[in-house]
Amino acid sequence: MRHVGTPDDIALDVAEVLVAGDLRGIASHGTARLPVYISLVEGGVMDAQARPKRIRGMPALALWDGRNGWGHHAGRVLMDDAIERAATQGVAVSSVRHANHYGIAGWFAMRAATRGLIGISMTNSSPLVAPTRGMTKLLGTNPIAMAAPAGRFGMLVLDMATSAVTWGRLLVAERRGARVPDGVAIDREGLPTTSPAAALAGGALLPLGGIEETAGYKGYGLALLVDVLTGVLAAANFGSRVVPFSLTDGPSGLGQFFLAIDPAALEDGFEARLESLVDELVNAPLAPGAAGPVLMPGQPEAQREVEQLRHGIVLDAAHHTSLTALGHRLGIHFPESRPWGRVPGPPT
Amino acid sequence: MRHVGTPDDIALDVAEVLVAGDLRGIASHGTARLPVYISLVEGGVMDAQARPKRIRGMPALALWDGRNGWGHHAGRVLMDDAIERAATQGVAVSSVRHANHYGIAGWFAMRAATRGLIGISMTNSSPLVAPTRGMTKLLGTNPIAMAAPAGRFGMLVLDMATSAVTWGRLLVAERRGARVPDGVAIDREGLPTTSPAAALAGGALLPLGGIEETAGYKGYGLALLVDVLTGVLAAANFGSRVVPFSLTDGPSGLGQFFLAIDPAALEDGFEARLESLVDELVNAPLAPGAAGPVLMPGQPEAQREVEQLRHGIVLDAAHHTSLTALGHRLGIHFPESRPWGRVPGPPT
Repeated sequence: MRHVGTPDDIALDVAEVLVAGDLRGIASHGTARLPVYISLVEGGVMDAQARPKRIRGMPALALWDGRNGWGHHAGRVLMDDAIERAATQGVAVSSVRHANHYGIAGWFAMRAATRGLIGISMTNSSPLVAPTRGMTKLLGTNPIAMAAPAGRFGMLVLDMATSAVTWGRLLVAERRGARVPDGVAIDREGLPTTSPAAALAGGALLPLGGIEETAGYKGYGLALLVDVLTGVLAAANFGSRVVPFSLTDGPSGLGQFFLAIDPAALEDGFEARLESLVDELVNAPLAPGAAGPVLMPGQPEAQREVEQLRHGIVLDAAHHTSLTALGHRLGIHFPESRPWGRVPGPPT
Repeated sequence: MRHVGTPDDIALDVAEVLVAGDLRGIASHGTARLPVYISLVEGGVMDAQARPKRIRGMPALALWDGRNGWGHHAGRVLMDDAIERAATQGVAVSSVRHANHYGIAGWFAMRAATRGLIGISMTNSSPLVAPTRGMTKLLGTNPIAMAAPAGRFGMLVLDMATSAVTWGRLLVAERRGARVPDGVAIDREGLPTTSPAAALAGGALLPLGGIEETAGYKGYGLALLVDVLTGVLAAANFGSRVVPFSLTDGPSGLGQFFLAIDPAALEDGFEARLESLVDELVNAPLAPGAAGPVLMPGQPEAQREVEQLRHGIVLDAAHHTSLTALGHRLGIHFPESRPWGRVPGPPT
């Protein structure tokens, strides 16, 4: 990042968010994105030096211009602004236009939760989802993330696309020759398909809930809720106007939304209450054939983080190759590879 | 309502919300609930005279005590408070404990939208939904409602339970001898079922998305998000502790959340932007076999409202009978019945 002109402090923010994605096992939103980001900067599509600027606002609501810089940095600055304002206002929202991809939405919500607050983070994204009854991609997978401190359970972190599955899941299924479940995608004719190849070739994702009969209109409504609170509110791009990350189409122009609420402004004991709610859920009686215990949202990712902090982050071969190639091209030494299969044991 | 001691202004709020439910075709949350509400007041479970009281807060965030009064009135007061504070703070949240059932969640969000704001309203509710992998009812159908002004399209109103379907839908299906779709309910053994009777007899609803394989954990996460922002935040009841509306179990002790954002504080033209987004969606190319055009969330309800404002509200026989019986018991004259089949034509 520094090689393409990113100031140190901005690069540090980006690195922290990307590595958090890898650590939490969300490889699609971690350092694997770095080669694309760097190409966009080199191609003049993204500005590595831009800092977000506050345009206007009121005590609890502010509009920022992301100025087409690194989304991870702008998101960190905006969430910090919301956190700071929540301390005096109780709740605060930061809204941004001209923003870029910001990694895992959950990271920003978690930043609030580590400070004892409830954090919410949303972004719109380039169109991949067909609205219920439609056959063309008009909405992004528009994630909703919420995090809150949950006592001995750590943090509750909900970080979900509002589509049934992500585009990346289609790509993985295609590579593996697998099918996808019913109700997650349509083909280019608008017909339901379980073939990832058919969906990828001009088809679309379906919203959470699937087709109309299984309440897919709720997922469609949620994707729209996110677009209203991000792109429409910030006067950023929205709907089909959101530009995919590419060298030819220009800046993404995303809209993003960051909210922080201070529960302590209302009543003591928020964290203990959430702990007791989570306690009830994770100890619930299990349905026959359940894949395991009931989980708190974010629990698998937190377990993965603990594990990978100890043993190192697992990168798949393609990811590793793309990072070493990037480093080689930029003349940066990449740490020696240590393939997982040859690890002698957990480092102490 | 006045007959059981409800002050006129409170009764007016309740009436407005309940009739709005009927007008919009959401009969399960309209005047059909009145006999139950009245029984709860008569039974000493709900306080017809209580007014919500502000406990504490900061400029943009306030905690209220609903004091176990009419939920519709408290919700109106709290949303108005959020709307008023948003005018000076940009965004504001009202949180309430000791609240009761408040009718359609969307009404409160719409109250903000009619004033040019984005409104959000959420409530927790008594446990009917099993968390993913679980077999017992631990979370409510916890609705999320958002409304925003959409220019010539009127208002975008998303008002959705975070379960795949509602308990009421199971009751209707059972009455009609119909099945429910796959992935919306489990039986008392925790096994998937399409039999409404099997689900009603000790089973549970599944969250939006259905079983784990079709991303039901996202609906579970959303139900939990609502409980965190309502019951846990307000230190109200939450999870399995939310008391169903009944004469024997005591007050519901719900938690509710009302948020208002003033888009004009950030940038002019919000409504025109949302109009253009909706325009793109409702004119989208249709998938083969689509049941009709792509809809804006809230559009069917708005059409129903226009129609019923003109021709009168249709009540089904059981609903009509329960209201006339209630009126008879309280010595109140019920307007003369005009069965739909005998309506000579639209009144002019």
